[in-house]
Amino acid sequence: MTIQPVLIAGKWRDANASGSFRAENPATREALDEFPISTWADCDEALQAAAVAFHSRWTGDLPTDKRHDVSQFAAFLESFAARIEANKMAIVEMANRESGLPASPRLADNELPRTTGQLRQAAAAAREGTWALPTIDKANNIRSMLGPIGPVIVFGPNNFPLAFNSVAGGDFAAAIATGNPVIAKANTSHPGTTLLLAKEAQAAAEEVGLPPGWVQLIYRTRHEDGERLVADPRVGATGYTGSRNAGLKLKAAADKAGKPIYLELSSVNPVVILPGALEEKLEDIAGQFSTSCLMGAGQFCTNPGLVLLLAGETTERFLETVVGKFKAAPVGTLLSANVAKSLQQGIGFLIRAGAHTLVGGKAATATGYCHANTLLRASGQQFLDAPEALQTEAFGNASLVVVAEDLDEAERCLKHLEGNLTGCIYSHTGGADDAAYNRLAPQLRLKVGRLINDKMPTGVAVSPAMNHGGPYPATGHSGFTAVGIPASLRRFAALHCYDNVRAGRLPPQLRD
Amino acid sequence: MTIQPVLIAGKWRDANASGSFRAENPATREALDEFPISTWADCDEALQAAAVAFHSRWTGDLPTDKRHDVSQFAAFLESFAARIEANKMAIVEMANRESGLPASPRLADNELPRTTGQLRQAAAAAREGTWALPTIDKANNIRSMLGPIGPVIVFGPNNFPLAFNSVAGGDFAAAIATGNPVIAKANTSHPGTTLLLAKEAQAAAEEVGLPPGWVQLIYRTRHEDGERLVADPRVGATGYTGSRNAGLKLKAAADKAGKPIYLELSSVNPVVILPGALEEKLEDIAGQFSTSCLMGAGQFCTNPGLVLLLAGETTERFLETVVGKFKAAPVGTLLSANVAKSLQQGIGFLIRAGAHTLVGGKAATATGYCHANTLLRASGQQFLDAPEALQTEAFGNASLVVVAEDLDEAERCLKHLEGNLTGCIYSHTGGADDAAYNRLAPQLRLKVGRLINDKMPTGVAVSPAMNHGGPYPATGHSGFTAVGIPASLRRFAALHCYDNVRAGRLPPQLRD
Repeated sequence: MTIQPVLIAGKWRDANASGSFRAENPATREALDEFPISTWADCDEALQAAAVAFHSRWTGDLPTDKRHDVSQFAAFLESFAARIEANKMAIVEMANRESGLPASPRLADNELPRTTGQLRQAAAAAREGTWALPTIDKANNIRSMLGPIGPVIVFGPNNFPLAFNSVAGGDFAAAIATGNPVIAKANTSHPGTTLLLAKEAQAAAEEVGLPPGWVQLIYRTRHEDGERLVADPRVGATGYTGSRNAGLKLKAAADKAGKPIYLELSSVNPVVILPGALEEKLEDIAGQFSTSCLMGAGQFCTNPGLVLLLAGETTERFLETVVGKFKAAPVGTLLSANVAKSLQQGIGFLIRAGAHTLVGGKAATATGYCHANTLLRASGQQFLDAPEALQTEAFGNASLVVVAEDLDEAERCLKHLEGNLTGCIYSHTGGADDAAYNRLAPQLRLKVGRLINDKMPTGVAVSPAMNHGGPYPATGHSGFTAVGIPASLRRFAALHCYDNVRAGRLPPQLRD
Repeated sequence: MTIQPVLIAGKWRDANASGSFRAENPATREALDEFPISTWADCDEALQAAAVAFHSRWTGDLPTDKRHDVSQFAAFLESFAARIEANKMAIVEMANRESGLPASPRLADNELPRTTGQLRQAAAAAREGTWALPTIDKANNIRSMLGPIGPVIVFGPNNFPLAFNSVAGGDFAAAIATGNPVIAKANTSHPGTTLLLAKEAQAAAEEVGLPPGWVQLIYRTRHEDGERLVADPRVGATGYTGSRNAGLKLKAAADKAGKPIYLELSSVNPVVILPGALEEKLEDIAGQFSTSCLMGAGQFCTNPGLVLLLAGETTERFLETVVGKFKAAPVGTLLSANVAKSLQQGIGFLIRAGAHTLVGGKAATATGYCHANTLLRASGQQFLDAPEALQTEAFGNASLVVVAEDLDEAERCLKHLEGNLTGCIYSHTGGADDAAYNRLAPQLRLKVGRLINDKMPTGVAVSPAMNHGGPYPATGHSGFTAVGIPASLRRFAALHCYDNVRAGRLPPQLRD
């Protein structure tokens, strides 16, 4: 069987490989194409090509205006977006085959337009330029703006084969728009999709005349080579979305080398539902929660994994309703054997930590990888006794309900939360829960990146006001967002100041 | 002898001490006041008080508008500035005694007004609010802004007893203006000055009604307690300015805990002087360089520690001129015994790495701590053979000149530079050096935070366009600046997003 090629230094070529792996269709367990595991030689060549490309573009023998011209990056992003649309059928088909996610509406109608939309928004931000916070102090003749940081390594997650793809998603778009080459490390659950996207990216790069090696692709390395990669002197920064365990290893390596690394790691996305809200619209909220928890088999960074309720008869009715919905809902296909395995492990861990099963809890039997829709329950006191263990992320169609005795106990539970991407509070629309809200919301505010009212956390709009980030360990730095343009661009930038620099030598953006 | 008190939880009290140390007048070697070395018990109590203060202010039982009201922080900063001015004489006298820096003009006329100016600029930025990048997306009803990150630990450097003081300087002002309590760790070379400033800070905090423990002061801890401090779960972030060695230990501890730490570590601030500039104004540039290198005994973060020249007769004349000036210039007092010791070690290290002494090189004999004005020389090839060793920072009145054979070699030298705060190029005003500039400047751009033309790097204006930062290892993150308001505030902030949050619950800054 043919092993697929890597894209290094502008060429598609056989990898310098230490082995290979097969993609798999998680809905059928059918083996798909074969991809190489690159050795350090591939990583080194990619780093060298990225460094040469970066230096030729930013330090090369170009007139100042040409060197600082960002329209080439914008043109690349726009051409790439158009090429993805032109090849939509093939890309969606491959992503469906590799991820088990529905071709429509999920991939073709939601995720693909989101992907091209992000690429175009990043292009517009690059052209428009205010993302760089240009600042001119004429009196002192000092000027500054954010500028490129150097080659960016992007590790994409498994759960968005298009919109967070390492060679087409948000991190990629942000890194390119700020003027950096990208070395994409494919997620091994959708290497074929990444290959198709990289082909379009490379074609677009050639079309607009970016230096060879501006966009590169490898699929997999040994773990130690990944750690070496993010710490390499030729790297500017890294963007990583994925498991906490692997992410923290990369973070340790990057931190030690003084290289910025932006991580999106894990989050249980606490949802507090106050009694007045339940009195008002129990059925509605139960529906919203079940849909949010189970859609896409729950495989979202912002899946509501922890629900905090106050003890009472209404809460019991709410849970019965949710259990009914969880039983009735179809069981979704999980993204891979690994996801199925770690979902089962996560649920097992929560149960050993004291939670008991309201519904589900076991692997489901089907052709594809899947797990029964699962709802676990623990008391507030149990949570307070083992707050760390009971915040274990069970990535998939599972959620833990914590029932606190009273508001005091609920507040104590919130104080024990780790950093999360989102935190949500449902409250009575007439104000019956306002006192409770006013106690809990400020606590929750400091634990999450995005504070939500009266809706579920899934659905991350590509909005300039979005924060898809949050306090550690949800991410590596609570000041940055991975979604939302222009803010997400600032992750891959260095602050460049010009002091007394002669007018003709300034970037055009900083001239009087 | 009385041991001076620490300021913890709003009270001046005896430290829980494991020992003590004496301040020293570096100009006379006279022992000054005695200060405690705090145990972990002091650190723990300060952390707890800061956490309680922070939570009472941001999550306490206040109406929303009151909770988000930042005018109290602004009022504090303004009152503090006025109190520093009212106690100017005593503060300047103590800073002069502890640092050996001239009372006038340096401390009284430059550094103290800079300090109060920074406090007032930070207050104005807090009131004005655009530093927080408030962003409103009405269509999606998503809003975001930067907000406080939690208690900030500030480690101040030895070389600015006022303007970078841990309880009054730029990091302090930025952390307070973003709404965070500060635990100041005094620099041990000016604990008495820090004590005087902290008294005024505490009085101002009481005057405006900040919760007890918003401003706290300890003087010294064991190294392991410092590492524990920056990694503590109750901490939001840390600002550190000081030696690379100590800073990297703190960074490792903070990184491991996922706590942001902003470091300003070391920099040799390369200055390239091109041949045309020397032809044009050799004497002038020699004067500028000597003044910049020797003023304040060279104890500036942006001291020009590495000069890159092209071989030739004019360069030889330039060096002779500089040597004459170094011989003629008075020898300044160094800040402490430690500074004298590490300056001597740094010079010794450069010499062992191949540099030879043009002038100075030895400790000077005087009542105070001092070192002969020192100029070392190496060839471009020597630099390329040992680039890391020859970039050792010799903090003080010493500089290394590297003479490259030609432009190619000079460019190779620049490629081997570590990250620096500043990089400067002098070139002919008529354009005779433009080709050389165009080759070297883009290389230098990527290695420094502030690119300078035709003047020396010392003098860091408090300008909104300033970047007192740069690539690692000059600092810990090249996206941020330690000087310049409002940008420096963003270091101590988290991104807070509000999604579908009801209008009355939003911070006033994010309402329609």
